[in-house]
Amino acid sequence: MCLQQLLGIHLPIIQAPMAGVQGSALAVAVSNAGGLGSLPCAMLTPETLRRELTVLQTQTTHPYNVNFFCHTPPTPDAEREAAWRAALTPYFTELGLDANVIPSGPGRQPFSADMADVLAEFKPPVVSFHFGLPSADLLARVKSWGAKVLSSATTVDEACWLEAHGADAIIAQGLEAGGHRGMFLTDDLHTQVGTFALLPQVVQAVNIPVIAAGGIADAAGVAAALSLGAAGVQVGTAYLTCSEATTSPLHRAALQSEQARVTALTNLFTGRPARGIVNRIMREMGPISPLAPAFPLATAAIAPLRAQAESHGLTDFTPLWAGQNTSGCHTQPAAELTRALAALVRT
Amino acid sequence: MCLQQLLGIHLPIIQAPMAGVQGSALAVAVSNAGGLGSLPCAMLTPETLRRELTVLQTQTTHPYNVNFFCHTPPTPDAEREAAWRAALTPYFTELGLDANVIPSGPGRQPFSADMADVLAEFKPPVVSFHFGLPSADLLARVKSWGAKVLSSATTVDEACWLEAHGADAIIAQGLEAGGHRGMFLTDDLHTQVGTFALLPQVVQAVNIPVIAAGGIADAAGVAAALSLGAAGVQVGTAYLTCSEATTSPLHRAALQSEQARVTALTNLFTGRPARGIVNRIMREMGPISPLAPAFPLATAAIAPLRAQAESHGLTDFTPLWAGQNTSGCHTQPAAELTRALAALVRT
Repeated sequence: MCLQQLLGIHLPIIQAPMAGVQGSALAVAVSNAGGLGSLPCAMLTPETLRRELTVLQTQTTHPYNVNFFCHTPPTPDAEREAAWRAALTPYFTELGLDANVIPSGPGRQPFSADMADVLAEFKPPVVSFHFGLPSADLLARVKSWGAKVLSSATTVDEACWLEAHGADAIIAQGLEAGGHRGMFLTDDLHTQVGTFALLPQVVQAVNIPVIAAGGIADAAGVAAALSLGAAGVQVGTAYLTCSEATTSPLHRAALQSEQARVTALTNLFTGRPARGIVNRIMREMGPISPLAPAFPLATAAIAPLRAQAESHGLTDFTPLWAGQNTSGCHTQPAAELTRALAALVRT
Repeated sequence: MCLQQLLGIHLPIIQAPMAGVQGSALAVAVSNAGGLGSLPCAMLTPETLRRELTVLQTQTTHPYNVNFFCHTPPTPDAEREAAWRAALTPYFTELGLDANVIPSGPGRQPFSADMADVLAEFKPPVVSFHFGLPSADLLARVKSWGAKVLSSATTVDEACWLEAHGADAIIAQGLEAGGHRGMFLTDDLHTQVGTFALLPQVVQAVNIPVIAAGGIADAAGVAAALSLGAAGVQVGTAYLTCSEATTSPLHRAALQSEQARVTALTNLFTGRPARGIVNRIMREMGPISPLAPAFPLATAAIAPLRAQAESHGLTDFTPLWAGQNTSGCHTQPAAELTRALAALVRT
């Protein structure tokens, strides 16, 4: 079965869910254009999720995707937290902030029964997960209303694990991809794989459709991914500058500047490696720090620095999520980008 | 001008030069099959170079490529060398070797006037460089007999630099590639780029042909690279198991095992980051060590460990060079692989 049949979509283009920089508006635009729009739900409360799903259900009759994280919530570690704050103290001093007064950061909750309850009211046709899959009973609940389940693999082993545990399609997330690495069976960044190598090897290893992610920014990129055996693609970065995204003006400007040529995987902003444009804190501390608290606890201490710097127009402490290929970052409606991405696809 | 016209070849397939695992036999086979065979020269003396070029000139009438390194030879650092030997001492003890008796390792000399003198006798049609370009006068000498000059870029900045300094075509070396990273304007591994993102951005940035390298292992990979704007491809890993390569039986076995799924960039074997299959020393020391002496001095201390372990059939200390996509590693004649790679190319 091809990906379009599996998901009930017209074009094999999935808009990557991107927490913090988009809501239902972007998803609606992509789904209405024939792709699969995605709603990132990891930072939503059940109430906000219900509101966003109501918008989606009202504004599109096409399939859409809701995305959740599946991490194990960390046990707070007071010593590590103290070391992290100590490392950041010079920045707090420089910005005139008190390092001892840090509100808890924006939460990122793993998929839970509460969220499944809300989903059950709406029965979204596609549910995607990052960092593995939820528990077998939660997954069975999601599948019980007919939802198709996607999840990200960063290695061949992860792809085989996802297939064995019930995914309907695999997102092969190459090293080029922006945002969080979906890695869940390994935490070794040294052995993460580029799209050109990951994709054909995953295609060879599994019997379900494989969606390519990482470095795809235009119709030629989509054609190349399909040549390598992908059933479809997931594109994130190029959607960040679409009019329907809620990407901040500072983030948009960075994406469309030469600064965007240099990205790195960093754990400074959330505690898990995620790709963003290299900025001051990544340069000065190095993008990966052993001091950063476990995901998602690292977010809290950075947040006040980020807010203060941004109020002066600086992105020194802002996670400027981006993949390695920002050449598709134009200001345009998402429907236009969706159709442009699919321009070389035979439908 | 297309790459085939520029280089005088029939198929846009370049066999990557791979020092230590091949000589003229592989290059001859590829050139005679219509691709561009390459002779790695970084570890040759002027006398061996002359002998190999004589073989090439005798056995093929088609164009071939000779490859040289352009690094600045390091100043030996006694303190770092001592720290490195101390770190390796437990392995010397385990293998019954004396860490104080280490012969100097196999040299890797940068391209020099001596080598240019030998080349001048043969006027090879293509000369490729790694780690940048040689000095302007040496480059002018190479170009004076009409040789086309290629060099590797790992970032857009490096590609623009190479174009400005006289390269006739750029090899865009994605992170997936096996062997040494060609990086020369940066030493930051965090910001190295996958083929899917590097290739289209280099194509956009320069006005000379771009050759894709990294993760390409079959005809579909070649087609994908051409979709992304490449004028041709350079393939290394898949040639390692060809009958004409001198790859050791241990290295061949590793390439054709599941172990090959996990590679990393490591500086343990030469002092510069190069991609190989993860083995015991990479696992135990971590693939990148700040103690490893500068390129190519790290080679010396590893060599006796490698020889001793290999005599027991172990690859614990062997550089198992490989890219991230070993799916093309079959035992076959190089001519067959060359034709298979070009199967979807319109010529």
